[in-house]
Amino acid sequence: MEDITAALTFYTEVLGLAPGRPEMSDGAMIVSLHFGDTEVELLEPRTPDSPIARFLAKRGPGIHHICYRVPDLDEALDSCRRAGYQLVDQQPRPGAGGRRVAFVHPKSTSGILIELTD
Amino acid sequence: MEDITAALTFYTEVLGLAPGRPEMSDGAMIVSLHFGDTEVELLEPRTPDSPIARFLAKRGPGIHHICYRVPDLDEALDSCRRAGYQLVDQQPRPGAGGRRVAFVHPKSTSGILIELTD
Repeated sequence: MEDITAALTFYTEVLGLAPGRPEMSDGAMIVSLHFGDTEVELLEPRTPDSPIARFLAKRGPGIHHICYRVPDLDEALDSCRRAGYQLVDQQPRPGAGGRRVAFVHPKSTSGILIELTD
Repeated sequence: MEDITAALTFYTEVLGLAPGRPEMSDGAMIVSLHFGDTEVELLEPRTPDSPIARFLAKRGPGIHHICYRVPDLDEALDSCRRAGYQLVDQQPRPGAGGRRVAFVHPKSTSGILIELTD
């Protein structure tokens, strides 16, 4: 989204969630909201060539990706390769919050950009 | 998505989840996968004029909506109205799994179609 502050209102006023401290990752400002064992990340581009800026320019605001936590990321990437899924990241790389992450290409997952982390 | 069976492979083979029994709602077949206190629904249109068929025709496969469970749906809809969010459903209506649901219009939530349930 272009403006996290405006978007945050829904999560704070309607859902009653408390936003975390903003952090930067991949040229985007990220504000996380935790509930149960789930987390929503609001992303706002801070550099014009960032992946989030390109997504916004091409598709407009919306849901960028879904992230699933797996017990073992390396094993999950092996499972992806065995099952024929196209990986954006062949190896885990550092993501927001110090996590190891890897993305699966949306071409092989019904148009859904999926991030895996452990 | 056009074909739940193909899409299911990722959730069963990579994530190791067990799909629930298919059910019909709003002209779509829905297969749910539960993990922790979260649920993913895969939707495949079964009638050409269903909301999911129209979404696929317009946008292609991808993430259709996000649903948040709230303690009190009527109260959450009041909060939405007070905060100026445009509602698709002014009153709760029956959704999949016998739940009461209501949708918030994506125009007021950064392009994200949000469903609320209690």
